[in-house]
Amino acid sequence: MTISHDFSGVIAPVLTPFGDDGAPDAARFVAHAKWLLADGCTGLAPFGTTGEANSLGLEERMGLLEALVDGGLDPKILMPGTGLCALSDTVKVTRHAVAKGCGGVMMLPPFYYKAVEDDGLFAYYAEVIERVGDDRLKIYLYHIPPVAQVGLSVALVGRLIEAYPETIVGLKDSSGDWDNTRALLDAYPDFTIFPGSEIFLLEGLRNGSAGCITATGNVNARMIRNVYDKWRTDAADDLQAQITALRLTLQARPTIPMLKAIVAHFRNDPGWARLRPPFLPLEAGDARAGIDELTQQYGFELKAA
Amino acid sequence: MTISHDFSGVIAPVLTPFGDDGAPDAARFVAHAKWLLADGCTGLAPFGTTGEANSLGLEERMGLLEALVDGGLDPKILMPGTGLCALSDTVKVTRHAVAKGCGGVMMLPPFYYKAVEDDGLFAYYAEVIERVGDDRLKIYLYHIPPVAQVGLSVALVGRLIEAYPETIVGLKDSSGDWDNTRALLDAYPDFTIFPGSEIFLLEGLRNGSAGCITATGNVNARMIRNVYDKWRTDAADDLQAQITALRLTLQARPTIPMLKAIVAHFRNDPGWARLRPPFLPLEAGDARAGIDELTQQYGFELKAA
Repeated sequence: MTISHDFSGVIAPVLTPFGDDGAPDAARFVAHAKWLLADGCTGLAPFGTTGEANSLGLEERMGLLEALVDGGLDPKILMPGTGLCALSDTVKVTRHAVAKGCGGVMMLPPFYYKAVEDDGLFAYYAEVIERVGDDRLKIYLYHIPPVAQVGLSVALVGRLIEAYPETIVGLKDSSGDWDNTRALLDAYPDFTIFPGSEIFLLEGLRNGSAGCITATGNVNARMIRNVYDKWRTDAADDLQAQITALRLTLQARPTIPMLKAIVAHFRNDPGWARLRPPFLPLEAGDARAGIDELTQQYGFELKAA
Repeated sequence: MTISHDFSGVIAPVLTPFGDDGAPDAARFVAHAKWLLADGCTGLAPFGTTGEANSLGLEERMGLLEALVDGGLDPKILMPGTGLCALSDTVKVTRHAVAKGCGGVMMLPPFYYKAVEDDGLFAYYAEVIERVGDDRLKIYLYHIPPVAQVGLSVALVGRLIEAYPETIVGLKDSSGDWDNTRALLDAYPDFTIFPGSEIFLLEGLRNGSAGCITATGNVNARMIRNVYDKWRTDAADDLQAQITALRLTLQARPTIPMLKAIVAHFRNDPGWARLRPPFLPLEAGDARAGIDELTQQYGFELKAA
């Protein structure tokens, strides 16, 4: 069985809906995943930061991944997050994702202990890869120091690529720091690198990135995909300016609650606005103000699939 | 079944040994726990930061707790760490600890997502308490902002005590900030508060704390316990100065690797020095230099039980 690791384009870290019992809602989740593909996503990254993945238990993650695959999504376009704090839990959910045929996994470094050394992070990834022990494993490193605090230096990424060239195949850079993304692109031109925001989409593509993996792809994949499709045309800079402006408005409020409020509003499904603690939904007035801004300034809407 | 929540004195967050297969070593773990009690600990806090708990999988934590109880330790003196990133995992291991009869649990706030609000953290603890749904549950909040980054404000602690006075019974303050500990002691005089280092033991006791929960209790419980036992005597300040000096030497190198190196050295059991990635053992020369300092400056040794 050969698994491609050719992820590219616009990938959404899928929002995770919760039922009124507080449990993840698999039916809404699968429906949203299918809608995202219809809306222009080329791949999906369930269980990212945006998906409140680190508020989901191990069994919940694995159950939701099974729901996606059983629901008919092609596992080859799925790149689930499988990087947990604890090495043994990471191995468990990574093995599960590989067994389900996922095209890749996105893997945070272990993020509880701070000020750990590159040697320790290298040892962690090495032990995960060896314990999973499966040639089908394709890891996309997940660099998000504003949240995880523990990041992956350019030098460490290079050591991992060199040691595991068939396994360490890409990276999502959610540092928000273009200089870091650019340094990675320059250092590892054959590596599959995704900026973590569409703000860097065009600049990234012009410097060899593979697209973007972006939270706001949950509500705006169509326009982002349009930039991806037309990035070599004369229209590219104008199209990029539009998605950058929309992104800045979308992230002006707490992003995950705002995205859920948008989905709830346009689908007329208030339950979609639920979050799991420690996150809380936006105040109704705040959500309303955000949606008004989007509709009035950008004519924004969430189209049916 | 009535469970006391009268933890006090010197509590060690038990180091977690690993076998040469990288799995936690239950036999060494239980033996060390018993030795700690013989050495002067009044209680044990397995699965704290020092115990590399956030590198342990759910099943590993629960398995080690069962090993302690099956190994004959009184569960009433155990305060296992049960605060994971994900609410549902926290509920799972907390229920398990309560079912095993543990006298309390030590619970981190959810620590992946940063800049969350007090309302969100309150909602998290409230939902955990309601889902566990067991009057025997006694929670010791775990405030360790240097590592978890997400902390518990003095105001939030007060809200939790007020809402759940029978459940939220204490706190470990590993902020390293005496002003914060003092503010908590002043604000909540009936609350069971432990500084996270013996450096604050005497000052804490004089201001109403219950003792300390301290990493270095793994190798120095006897001297720390002596301060606890004699804190009202004229010798207290001198005894405190001695354990403070020793603590500063112990933490001059990365604390967890140093503590494991000490145990490995004095028990003549090199396997004890293993850590799980992202931690790595100290270089041999570094460990040796640390042990030499301890023996030469303080006549330090790890006595047999």
